Amino acid sequence: MTDTANDAIAILGGTGDQGLGLALRFAKAGRPVRIGSRVPERAEAAAREVAAAVPGAKVSGAGNPEATAGAGVVILSVPFEHTATTLKAVKDSLAPGQIVVSMGVPLAAAIGDGAVRTLGVWQGSCAELVASLTPPGVHVVSAFQNVSAHRLRELDHEVACDVVVSGAPEPRKAVMALCALVPGLRAVDGGPLANARIVESVTALLIGLNIRYKVPAGIGIRFTGLPG
Amino acid sequence: MTDTANDAIAILGGTGDQGLGLALRFAKAGRPVRIGSRVPERAEAAAREVAAAVPGAKVSGAGNPEATAGAGVVILSVPFEHTATTLKAVKDSLAPGQIVVSMGVPLAAAIGDGAVRTLGVWQGSCAELVASLTPPGVHVVSAFQNVSAHRLRELDHEVACDVVVSGAPEPRKAVMALCALVPGLRAVDGGPLANARIVESVTALLIGLNIRYKVPAGIGIRFTGLPG
Repeated sequence: MTDTANDAIAILGGTGDQGLGLALRFAKAGRPVRIGSRVPERAEAAAREVAAAVPGAKVSGAGNPEATAGAGVVILSVPFEHTATTLKAVKDSLAPGQIVVSMGVPLAAAIGDGAVRTLGVWQGSCAELVASLTPPGVHVVSAFQNVSAHRLRELDHEVACDVVVSGAPEPRKAVMALCALVPGLRAVDGGPLANARIVESVTALLIGLNIRYKVPAGIGIRFTGLPG
Repeated sequence: MTDTANDAIAILGGTGDQGLGLALRFAKAGRPVRIGSRVPERAEAAAREVAAAVPGAKVSGAGNPEATAGAGVVILSVPFEHTATTLKAVKDSLAPGQIVVSMGVPLAAAIGDGAVRTLGVWQGSCAELVASLTPPGVHVVSAFQNVSAHRLRELDHEVACDVVVSGAPEPRKAVMALCALVPGLRAVDGGPLANARIVESVTALLIGLNIRYKVPAGIGIRFTGLPG
């Protein structure tokens, strides 16, 4: 199962706030969701949480490599400092045609500094770091960095946020289509993967705004003047 | 006249699209506007254009140093590659208490590459470059980078865009208050000046979106979830 037509969405780091939020939303939209974790028991517990919140959810929990194998889309939702380790652990489970979604942000919190600043990444961004560590034929797409975990988890409310999706055209379109599964999210064509450099840094700006404006639930972004 | 209470707004590079757009808007709001240019005649011609479009406008044109001297707020609206030269030319006209607004973006167009990418600036951003070149006691604030020149110039329409304003608290507040003069602009507290690194790069992203979505008039941004 290496066909991108495969409906399953694996969420590595799906036990964390933002990963679990996406798992809930995609499960609610009827998509099969596989939650991955370094510790399979934690993934299974998170899967039970999703199943309890979303009646009829097609959700399972497993170790990261098992969750990855054959999933059409693999969302990498681990803290930035675990990005490389996680990718190395699942490398042999990835196959050409799969899409890996990078939603990580190189927040300086990774080295004990603040979350309102970013680190410089040699490759340019977390997404480009991910691309440098994935096998040939696997498509890397950048998305979801600016979406509030808190708002994702409030299943009864829309998530008012645009999602800038960048990467090669075809996989980018596939990930843009995923955004339509979550009420309130709007996909915006973010062009080539390197634009993740900008999108990732916006997350640090949003975290600063959350602090200054005292909005723990999370501030999002919308683009104005888009056609349609 | 070095008091920030001085109502005059100097716009250096006020003959360019975005500078002229701000000149029109501030003049329409009743503020005295001084358009500055390297070539005084061009500044005078731009001032006549503003006067023709805005009946009763308090607007004048002059060389950059003359426009700068004593203005409460000096907006630097020159192409990035002219930032340092312009600041060196007006340095002796700046005095403690004045606010210099950096709206430049280090687009790679400055070196003949595209406008959808940015250059790395040693100081971190155009705004921090500006801060490194201004005399002590002059306050540098970053703002207006993401506002479409085209939409500023359409005086009959609102400009639907948030303006992230960053810098030290007091001058930041003064520039946030300026945003309220332009219908549709909303000031957002962008925290310390270094956040200009993020805000400036967003302009390159917006330019890419304008191209991909064929919106020459310009796409803007709004933050969602802000209180009030």
